[in-house]
Formats: sequence, structure tokens, C-alpha cells
Amino acid sequence: MKNIICLTEVEIDTFLPSGGLAEAQKLMGPYILVTPENLDREAWADLIENCDPEIILAAWETPMLPEHVRDRAPNLKYVCYLPGSVRKLIPRSAIEQGLMVTNWGSSISRTIAECALMLVLCCMRRVCYWTQQMHYEGAWKDGESTTQSLFEKRVGLHGFGAISRQLVILLKPFTNRISACSPGVPQSIFDESGVARIETLEELFSENDVVVELSALTEKNYRIVTEDLLRRIPEGGAFVNVGRGALVDEDALYRIAKEGKIQIGLDVYGEEPLPETSPFRGLSNVLLLPHLGGPTTDRRADAGDHGLENLRRYRNSGELLDNIDLDKFDRAS
Amino acid sequence: MKNIICLTEVEIDTFLPSGGLAEAQKLMGPYILVTPENLDREAWADLIENCDPEIILAAWETPMLPEHVRDRAPNLKYVCYLPGSVRKLIPRSAIEQGLMVTNWGSSISRTIAECALMLVLCCMRRVCYWTQQMHYEGAWKDGESTTQSLFEKRVGLHGFGAISRQLVILLKPFTNRISACSPGVPQSIFDESGVARIETLEELFSENDVVVELSALTEKNYRIVTEDLLRRIPEGGAFVNVGRGALVDEDALYRIAKEGKIQIGLDVYGEEPLPETSPFRGLSNVLLLPHLGGPTTDRRADAGDHGLENLRRYRNSGELLDNIDLDKFDRAS
Repeated sequence: MKNIICLTEVEIDTFLPSGGLAEAQKLMGPYILVTPENLDREAWADLIENCDPEIILAAWETPMLPEHVRDRAPNLKYVCYLPGSVRKLIPRSAIEQGLMVTNWGSSISRTIAECALMLVLCCMRRVCYWTQQMHYEGAWKDGESTTQSLFEKRVGLHGFGAISRQLVILLKPFTNRISACSPGVPQSIFDESGVARIETLEELFSENDVVVELSALTEKNYRIVTEDLLRRIPEGGAFVNVGRGALVDEDALYRIAKEGKIQIGLDVYGEEPLPETSPFRGLSNVLLLPHLGGPTTDRRADAGDHGLENLRRYRNSGELLDNIDLDKFDRAS
Repeated sequence: MKNIICLTEVEIDTFLPSGGLAEAQKLMGPYILVTPENLDREAWADLIENCDPEIILAAWETPMLPEHVRDRAPNLKYVCYLPGSVRKLIPRSAIEQGLMVTNWGSSISRTIAECALMLVLCCMRRVCYWTQQMHYEGAWKDGESTTQSLFEKRVGLHGFGAISRQLVILLKPFTNRISACSPGVPQSIFDESGVARIETLEELFSENDVVVELSALTEKNYRIVTEDLLRRIPEGGAFVNVGRGALVDEDALYRIAKEGKIQIGLDVYGEEPLPETSPFRGLSNVLLLPHLGGPTTDRRADAGDHGLENLRRYRNSGELLDNIDLDKFDRAS
């Protein structure tokens, strides 16, 4: 029986820098280190069968596990997946068979919150407009130019999970007027964060200067941000999406964007990569990023640390952080 | 004797919204309200002579006071100037004659700090590059795209006045590795802010990932940021200037910018408006703003509140906040 570390060199360098790999090896015990390049799914399945590992340490490039993997590798108990999207690696049948799986959990939330704050600040200062003006039009401000600050603004968050709670920490030095709409979250979490609870999306969009979309994408949430909601954002306000593009009626968002009354910051889109012909491209009140919210390359180490902590927990208590059960698996994007 | 309020409608609406004007009028006692449009300097001097005011409330559009103004208006004691640059309004001779003058002081510092934080975050995420790529090139990220976070980064501040201290508050949720170089500032101020003191600019630029230029412009500081200093910023690092353009050797900054190894965020320039032909325009690693650090239009009210507080203090104790003495006048930009 040999555990398996299946990572590329870049994955090792970014997730497990400065001694992280050595620590993982120590925690895993007997192991083989394989590189996923040129490893097809058949060879990968054979390797797993031959090694019959207890633990697999994996990342983006690791091939998908075979269906009903524990039929082939009965000793396999735990897959420590360093990134987020477990569906790229784990078939549902493995979870059904009782395989324990962890991913980066909320260790990367703060980088997405950082991206959200940046987009909000960029909306306030109209950075997209000014970048276009300064770089392509040879322009400068004039007496008519106005600009806004985030200080004292009303900020509404749609969703109140780990990213939102990190965002609140970053927003607090600017404003105490923070509210969130997230029906499932208990009142105590709102109270701890000093965030006002808002019951309906209608209120959330009407009563804030800035709305940040941070909700998880579920069937119920698909295109939940309608034209009616978006039109409630007051003129001069802002809408930022770092959650998922499919939460928003993007055709409606485009119609509203074109009117130029609000500033918009987008990191996510219903179709990714964003099509070359997307009408959002070119609109000076819409800042566009290519889904790079988080984790940033330099903070993948946080996800690596989270994985190491889980390997440590696996060896000690067995109580893993952010274990992906069937329920979480089904809700994962 | 009649006090004078000389403000445009826009100045009243932005500096003194929601009852601010009424409060100013109450604090000033007998007054006349004049609008500076079409008020030439001669008519303005006559008006001052005829009113012989004790207080003048002024802003950007108010014409310059006549030389030795107290020879004409012996009762004039206090000019409450709502914006910052008193040299646009007050001849040195008036201060020599004992005139008390206040401006917005540090009431607007936080908005400039906000702009600095935004530029730093934009450098980390390469917002200028991505705006160009997303809006003009129809692009999307690829496997080679890397991005950075401000979390845990080393941030060095050149200058440790009011803006820097506000910036520290905004930086703290991201990193504790903040240092500053500002020879004149007492150690106690560093200790209170939890900021490490750095003795030399050489160390400041060598030992930080991000350097923010926030120093006052003095004769001694003119182009103090040399090519040698700029080249010390580590590859992948960032340089942000929200202080004054003339603090920096901009030719050297351009040469370094062109090499693309660091990200740069600029709100200020040696020559403003930035010439249409400036070589900085078009460089995808240089985010450019047209000197709109602060205050933002919506936070001019903070400067108005500061002015009202000083009118109140003038009436009560006479101890004004941020009184501009000859020393401050000579150092003002």
C-alpha cells in the first residue's frame, strides 16, 4: 500500500512552497509522487489499483478518479484535493462509497472578498472609464468630472457565506452601513458581524448604494437577479458580481449597463470564457475581469496550508475541515 | 460691518449640503452672500473694503484677496477657506498681517488614502492590463495568467502624515507588514499606528513589495524618488503615487515602467493635466487617474463640516483646527 501525490511542478511550487511538500510527504507516510502530465485516465485507474492508497493528494491536473474507486482500491479513505471544484476529480459514486474528500474550503475566501472590494472601489472612482479616457483618448478631468467614495455608503450583500463575512472585515473601515440578504443564515451570524439583516432582495437592491453579488449558485438562485431588482439600484450606485454569472439575468444587466446610470464590476459571467463578441466589452461603466477573484496565484499557499492542516487532522483526530459530503457535493459548482 | 460668504451654487451644494449653509450663516452673524462668478479682483477688493468683514467664507471660485488686505478691511480676522490650496486665495502678506486662515486640513485625508488603497489593489490584480485586454482585445485569461493579492504583502509608505495614517487603517485588514519612512515624525506616532519605522528610502524601496508615495512636496523632496530607488522595488512589486508627481523622476519611472517588471498606479504627475502625448498613456502596467484622489465630490461635505467646526471654534474658543501659519503657508502646494 502506497499513498499517492499527483501534482505538477507548478502545483507543488504554488500550493506547497517553502517546505510544504516535505511536510505533506511526512504526514502521508509511504507514498509515490506522480506527475499528472500524460497520465491518461486508464493508466491513472491502474496506478490507483496497484498502489491501493489510503490517501491521495491531488490538484487541478490530477485526472478524474475512476467510478466506484473503492472497489479497485479498498483501502482508499481520503482524497485531499488542494483546489476547489471537486467535481473535476471525484465521481459522486466515490462519496456514496464513503470516501472522505476535502478541498480549499474557505481558506481562499478572503482573496475573493479582496477582489469584490477592489471592484467596488473601482466603480466608485470609475476606473474603467478613466482607464479608457487616459490610455486611449489622451484625456484629463474637467470641471464636470465627479467621483465618489465608499466612505459612509450603504453596501448590501446578496449571500452571507464565508466570502461575504471576509468582505465585511474589509468594508468596515469604510462604512458601518452594511446589510445582507441570505435567508438560510442564522441571526447570530449577522449579529456577530454587525451586519443588518435584510429579508427580501427587493429591499436589498432598493436600499443600498452598492450591491455585491456573492450568493452560491443553486437551482433556486438561477438568474434570481432580475431586471426589476437591478433597476432598483439608485442612480450613481454600483453592482458588483464576484459570485456566479448565472445568478444574474445578463441580458437585463446589459440593457441597464448601456443606460450608464450605474457602475458595474464583473468577474464572473454566465458563459466563460466571456465571448469575444460580448456586448459588455467596450462599455465604459463596466469593469471586466476574466474570473480571477481567487485565490490569486500567490495565495494558493493558503489552500496548501489548509490541505496540510487536513492531512494533520486526518492523522490525528480524523475530524476534517470542510469535508465534502453528498449534500455539499451536489451543491458544488 | 458685514461678513462675506463668497461661494458658487455648486460649492454650496457640495460643501454645505443639508442645512450646512444655514448653520454657517447662523455662526457668521450679519453677512452678505455673493457669488464669485463675474466678480473681478477689483470689484472683490472694493466689496471687502465696503463690508469690512470679520469673517470671509470662501472656496475655489472666490477671487484672490487683495495684498495687505487688512489695510483695507481692518476688522478682518478670519478666512474660512473650505478647499485646500490657500495660495489660490490668500496672499502671503495677509498671513504676515496676522489673518487667521483655515482650509480642509486633514478632513479629506481618508478619501486620498482610499484612492491609494484602490491603486494598490488594482496593481496587484493588473486592472489596467485586464481592462485593455477585456475591452479592446476580446481576451480572456489563460494558463499563464498570474495574479496577486495584497494579503501578507510588505507595504512601505514614503511620508507618514495624515493620509498615510488613514491608509494604515485601510491596509491593516490585509497585512501587518507595514513600514514608513518619514524622518520628521516622532517615534510615538509610529508606535501608535503599529507601523515599523524605516530610516532610509533605500531600505524602504528595497524591502517592500509595494511602495506608496505620500510625501509632501518640499524643495528638499523634489524628484527625491530616483531611478536607483525605483529599481530597488522587487520584480512583481508595485509603485503607487498619490502624493505629488514632482516627487518622482518621471523619466526614470517611464523607463522602468516600459520594462514591465513592476505595476504602477498614478494619480499625480509632474505636469498636470498630463500631456496628451505622455508616454505613460498606453502602457498596460500603468494605471492612470486624472488627479482625483480626494476629496471625492460626495465627500466635500466632510470639508464643509470641518469648516463649520472651525467657525464654531472661532466663535467659542478661538482655537482653530489646522490654522495656516506662515510656516504652513510656505510649505503648501
